[in-house]
Amino acid sequence: MSSVAPEVEKKEEEEEQVVNPWEVSAGKGGIDYDKLVDQFGCQRLHAALIDRIARLTGRPPHRFLRRGLFFAHRDLNEILDLFEKGDKFYLYTGRGPSSEALHLGHLVPFMFTKYLQDAFKVPLVIQLTDDEKFLWKNLTVEESKRLARENAKDIIACGFDVERTFIFSDFNFVGGAFYENMVKVARCVTYNKVVGIFGFTPEDHIGKISFPPVQAVPSFPSSFPKHFSGNDQLRCLIPCAIDQDPYFRMTRDVAPRIGYQKPALIESRFFPALQGENTKMSASDPNSAIYVTDNTKEIKTKVNKYAFSGGQDSVELHRKLGANLEVDVSIKYLNFFLEDDDELERIKKEYKEGSMLTGEVKQLLVKVLSEMVERHKRARARVTEEMVDAFMAVRPLPNMFG
Amino acid sequence: MSSVAPEVEKKEEEEEQVVNPWEVSAGKGGIDYDKLVDQFGCQRLHAALIDRIARLTGRPPHRFLRRGLFFAHRDLNEILDLFEKGDKFYLYTGRGPSSEALHLGHLVPFMFTKYLQDAFKVPLVIQLTDDEKFLWKNLTVEESKRLARENAKDIIACGFDVERTFIFSDFNFVGGAFYENMVKVARCVTYNKVVGIFGFTPEDHIGKISFPPVQAVPSFPSSFPKHFSGNDQLRCLIPCAIDQDPYFRMTRDVAPRIGYQKPALIESRFFPALQGENTKMSASDPNSAIYVTDNTKEIKTKVNKYAFSGGQDSVELHRKLGANLEVDVSIKYLNFFLEDDDELERIKKEYKEGSMLTGEVKQLLVKVLSEMVERHKRARARVTEEMVDAFMAVRPLPNMFG
Repeated sequence: MSSVAPEVEKKEEEEEQVVNPWEVSAGKGGIDYDKLVDQFGCQRLHAALIDRIARLTGRPPHRFLRRGLFFAHRDLNEILDLFEKGDKFYLYTGRGPSSEALHLGHLVPFMFTKYLQDAFKVPLVIQLTDDEKFLWKNLTVEESKRLARENAKDIIACGFDVERTFIFSDFNFVGGAFYENMVKVARCVTYNKVVGIFGFTPEDHIGKISFPPVQAVPSFPSSFPKHFSGNDQLRCLIPCAIDQDPYFRMTRDVAPRIGYQKPALIESRFFPALQGENTKMSASDPNSAIYVTDNTKEIKTKVNKYAFSGGQDSVELHRKLGANLEVDVSIKYLNFFLEDDDELERIKKEYKEGSMLTGEVKQLLVKVLSEMVERHKRARARVTEEMVDAFMAVRPLPNMFG
Repeated sequence: MSSVAPEVEKKEEEEEQVVNPWEVSAGKGGIDYDKLVDQFGCQRLHAALIDRIARLTGRPPHRFLRRGLFFAHRDLNEILDLFEKGDKFYLYTGRGPSSEALHLGHLVPFMFTKYLQDAFKVPLVIQLTDDEKFLWKNLTVEESKRLARENAKDIIACGFDVERTFIFSDFNFVGGAFYENMVKVARCVTYNKVVGIFGFTPEDHIGKISFPPVQAVPSFPSSFPKHFSGNDQLRCLIPCAIDQDPYFRMTRDVAPRIGYQKPALIESRFFPALQGENTKMSASDPNSAIYVTDNTKEIKTKVNKYAFSGGQDSVELHRKLGANLEVDVSIKYLNFFLEDDDELERIKKEYKEGSMLTGEVKQLLVKVLSEMVERHKRARARVTEEMVDAFMAVRPLPNMFG
């Protein structure tokens, strides 16, 4: 990643996009996802592969696939080859629990992972990196652990199957075979290498330098107790936003050197902030995001006040020129969350032609988001402490293939 | 440590002594312990402090104390102040299990720790850093764990009280509160700092950089389950060879920043190789050391063949000039292991005067070592797998104050 490990010949540093697990900043003109795919060395998720997922699972592809929101991958074709032969794999995703309330962007990977779990009927491990958040943020261990458990409730509310899903926090779970794999990975990665991948500096504390193996090892089945029928070679598929790719580039580099399979990935674009698509949402700026705890009134206010509009300055001009869909945040949000393809196309067409106004699009968006958030709230209210305990219980994972 | 983080103004680099956990090499004229004390910033263990130990424990000081073999400390006076007031502390020592058989140098800290445990009647935790040996040596995880358990048997054979002693290996024990403390320590130490303390280079793998917190945290009572009646502030005293000082300098620097007490230390000189006192014994050169598995014949052969002599080249010259005790390894070994002060003085006097010959001193040494090794072997043969399990059982440490 040249932006992270700058090279001397680089010019116009200010305009370069920076994408790593801790920073996403677009160059001029927004995130260049094509450039990112080339930089990172992952593969584009073409229509043929999406068709194949639909065929193999007997389900229509998720709207995130239909609309190119999950747009890149690594070795997804190999996972599908296995599945086609009747072999299984498992899913791994995660979250850094830095805040109490999740915003809509945080839900995206979990909504998609839930679809993958349902479609492929495979086990899933979800890592809550409370240690990472302790290391990067000014939190206590206790607060990090509390946030992990609160976030687990939101994740469970996404509808995962407890029989196939193991949620763990690092502070509660690191140890045993998981720690052994951390040490195995760490032995294969030099300081120079993590500087190249993650952009650490000599003034960074060694907690940061020690962390990448923690996020790497859930990619290896042997990190888990009585793992997946003892099959060290079971493949892993990781759905995540593309800013997490550096961790798994490192993991894939190390895997064959310690006798393990490389994890496969399926990677998403960033969910844009209300203010525009150049960055992902920030949990630290409440007006940049809609939270799963917001009520309908708050959602309405935020959308109306902050959602960047691609409409024209006056109704007259808008009727004449129509909206610029490329920069309109309401359209982008509908693209993520409005299920009905025909309705979405109709809205985009009418808005682009100017027959539909920004206010009308926003009104539709408020309805879609409010319903989704209310549904989430109802589901979360049903999540009991006992359910959290059940999802987080350390238990034999082979049972998850039942 | 200037030798580890060289400064530009340094001259005569070749002659400088290097002492860190992975390298002990003397400058010209052997290890300069006075210089080491000044470099490391620890304190000399004066006679007054040794007298105080004897007075407080009601026991004669151990020969390692009487003879200046444990010669430096940090805050030992504070530990004795506490003890005098009726407060307790706990002991922490450890071993990196890099080889199957221990040599006599390996026994030194454990013999001394056993004396401290008996004298002060305090709990003891013993860390087997199998993860460290995996990271530094070309071992598998399984082999490192096996060596840890084998070494535990030799340690138990030193006579520790199972009621007051918890032995753990990192691969088996890291997790929970121990891992939380590792992460807390790691957040307080920059990469620059560990480079300064340990001499890591950018080409070193991040496993090495991640390791110092693992050796640091047994200094903190809260790293252990149901620790010491929940007293986070219980002081810790660490008996160790002085090459381990860098770990605990780092630990002492961090401790107050995370709300913990600094560990105190009591530090020994190195046990010399048969070939001379400039380095400590090496487990990788079988002829540099006497092993606890050697038989009397092997001990006799090694002592006679390899123990560096301070005697003169001919009997005539020896009778005339006497021996140079400063370089004589047999005298140094007797200094460590011959209990009787009067006999030791007699031998040194007669040897120095030339009335005693090297061969006679070596014969006495063979007797002392053979008896000690045979005693150790008998004790080790009585160590059952069940006893190892008992010492290594994760259990509430408050019981250890019983």
